[in-house]
Amino acid sequence: MDPELFLDFANTVKGIHMFPYFDIAHYALSCIHVRDDMTSSVQLISRKHPLACWISSMVSCFAGYIIANFLLGEMVLAPFKNLDNVGLATLVWYLIFYSPFDVVYKMCKMLPVKATLSVMKEIQRVHKVYHGVEHAALLYPHAYLVQVIIGTVKGAGAGFTKIFERFIRGTWTPTGHEFLQPTFPTKACLAASVLFVVEAETEWITAPHSMVYLGVVIFFVYFKLSGLVLHMNDPFQPIENLFCAVFMGGVWDALSRAVQVSREKAAEKAANGEVDKKNK
Amino acid sequence: MDPELFLDFANTVKGIHMFPYFDIAHYALSCIHVRDDMTSSVQLISRKHPLACWISSMVSCFAGYIIANFLLGEMVLAPFKNLDNVGLATLVWYLIFYSPFDVVYKMCKMLPVKATLSVMKEIQRVHKVYHGVEHAALLYPHAYLVQVIIGTVKGAGAGFTKIFERFIRGTWTPTGHEFLQPTFPTKACLAASVLFVVEAETEWITAPHSMVYLGVVIFFVYFKLSGLVLHMNDPFQPIENLFCAVFMGGVWDALSRAVQVSREKAAEKAANGEVDKKNK
Amino acid sequence: MDPELFLDFANTVKGIHMFPYFDIAHYALSCIHVRDDMTSSVQLISRKHPLACWISSMVSCFAGYIIANFLLGEMVLAPFKNLDNVGLATLVWYLIFYSPFDVVYKMCKMLPVKATLSVMKEIQRVHKVYHGVEHAALLYPHAYLVQVIIGTVKGAGAGFTKIFERFIRGTWTPTGHEFLQPTFPTKACLAASVLFVVEAETEWITAPHSMVYLGVVIFFVYFKLSGLVLHMNDPFQPIENLFCAVFMGGVWDALSRAVQVSREKAAEKAANGEVDKKNK
Repeated sequence: MDPELFLDFANTVKGIHMFPYFDIAHYALSCIHVRDDMTSSVQLISRKHPLACWISSMVSCFAGYIIANFLLGEMVLAPFKNLDNVGLATLVWYLIFYSPFDVVYKMCKMLPVKATLSVMKEIQRVHKVYHGVEHAALLYPHAYLVQVIIGTVKGAGAGFTKIFERFIRGTWTPTGHEFLQPTFPTKACLAASVLFVVEAETEWITAPHSMVYLGVVIFFVYFKLSGLVLHMNDPFQPIENLFCAVFMGGVWDALSRAVQVSREKAAEKAANGEVDKKNK
Repeated sequence: MDPELFLDFANTVKGIHMFPYFDIAHYALSCIHVRDDMTSSVQLISRKHPLACWISSMVSCFAGYIIANFLLGEMVLAPFKNLDNVGLATLVWYLIFYSPFDVVYKMCKMLPVKATLSVMKEIQRVHKVYHGVEHAALLYPHAYLVQVIIGTVKGAGAGFTKIFERFIRGTWTPTGHEFLQPTFPTKACLAASVLFVVEAETEWITAPHSMVYLGVVIFFVYFKLSGLVLHMNDPFQPIENLFCAVFMGGVWDALSRAVQVSREKAAEKAANGEVDKKNK
Repeated sequence: MDPELFLDFANTVKGIHMFPYFDIAHYALSCIHVRDDMTSSVQLISRKHPLACWISSMVSCFAGYIIANFLLGEMVLAPFKNLDNVGLATLVWYLIFYSPFDVVYKMCKMLPVKATLSVMKEIQRVHKVYHGVEHAALLYPHAYLVQVIIGTVKGAGAGFTKIFERFIRGTWTPTGHEFLQPTFPTKACLAASVLFVVEAETEWITAPHSMVYLGVVIFFVYFKLSGLVLHMNDPFQPIENLFCAVFMGGVWDALSRAVQVSREKAAEKAANGEVDKKNK
């Protein structure tokens, strides 16, 4: 492939407008996620408590924006300023929950449709991570940690608001949150944020910016599709296990166990020796 | 009645100063609400944990202000900047909880006193809704949804902070909140906010502003008194039921149930036919 | 002792730089506090969920800063802007949780080391209270209550975030918070904040400022060491009990109980009298 053509393609991917098609894909998957999260109570909540259903869906759709604004001390309600976005999200929410004979929901759950929506959502996710990092960098130029955090929550916000969404729907599950078991999107957004911060602040990455962006998009799409089609596991798991074993006490714990065992054995031997001596 | 006199009256109602009498009514009813919400543990909490009692009462008194500021990314502590208001609220709280022989509390629970306080509180509520909408419109001129939300939480804030107040007093009830079962004041404040936004942004309402304001006040006072004296039910209920039946899936659910039933019958008939044929 | 020398000493105490040694003491005690709070699950959380462990430790280390910023409507993430502080806190966290054979943790729990760290932490606490009050006074010159609240949460923030830290680690304890049972540091920070506000706003305290500051430091250190070495109880308890008895209904409750008892006795007597009359 001609490298110039490839660069053009990368620039095109980076310049895609999110509104409305990619946003629709994101809203649809967010609402489906909320609906699937209700399991048995979906009829009850969507029919009897439409307000709670709508609010929890909106929180899920705009999760990244809301949390990032909260953390930056900006206006939490900001996503609701733009009526185009909220209107579109409300329309998608309505179709997912209340379409006649559930056609829209059933259609979206079909694999080809779901895969297409997922690919679009991942492209939008990278867009959000990148602009999150950029926005934070503009506000706090040398606060790299803040930039990484904002990039991560912008991309994977729905994971962090899950408990709050459930709370709005009347379910309280204080133990099922992202910090204890970060999901793959959260980890991927963290990695992407770190990459974007490193790219912006250091000279280590010499590739053109749009190529880096395209690489991140391909990474997100590839692992999303692997997960969807092949039910692949989290690719970060082995790295994490290694990291935990080396740095998070794994090695030292093993060593201290070994020391303890050897001491116990020595004590046992000594005791046996005592007994042997006595028996003599 | 002379229309000019009526307009004068409307202007007078709109221009009433809230501080101190209307604020006192609001604080008294808020503190009584907090106290009634404690049910059996009122002696325990007010005597053993006065700090928790005071904080939860203050949160209830300034609920609308606190939530609106939180949502707008402003200072959550803002109501505590004005020592006059906080001092007055503290005085009212003290009298409600600690007056000798509970005279103040018992007096406030008498119907004529309670009705008077309630009427004053409703007038103050409309004042808060209107100024909430106006404040949000000043900050975000075309964000109608934000204006409606701010108006609603300013008027019916105590409903939204209820869970938090209980949490401060050591009780955790994650399922009893406004989104699942909006109370009448919340719905009324929502309707009033929508009305004020429509009035400010469109040309649809041609009546003078103070007349609209007076109409809202009368609506609030009327339904409050009906609820208090006649134990009338929520007047929004029929509209909601109709809306849910038409838009929130009621009709389609009925239709799909009907289709399913007719299909089952057809299947049964076919099976019977089969059996009949076999029997022949 | 020469008064001039004493004043010099007071000025020295007031001018101590917190970074890095006093901050290290604070981070170490905060992380130890988080670790001790996990009790039996420390192995599980620190080894299996290092992210949750790190976040809850960071929240504990920067608790005052985070809550104060939240209450003032400023950026919640602000403590993470300064990479020096976060890096130092992370290093201390790592040593406390993952040092080989737990040497660092065990060393810090030894009484002389713990006492030294505690003294340093108390000096740092007074510094935080004072600068919290000063910061709030700069933003809101006449909002004395806001100044007191900010001073208190800056000094005793970890008490207020305890529930949130536990939540991050997957434990939800909605009843164990500061408002119900304020701990000694919270009360002491409240008293110190009031003192600093009174000093700044009135002419009642004529002593030089650094002497007042030194007095507060001595008060904090003295009671911390008494608690640590002599297991002394909370010195505010008697004052509180008196205050509750006089102002928080204690006297009136006793009086109304007395009235009730005397009435019951009178009723009994009357009843006995009736019986006596009948028997005659």
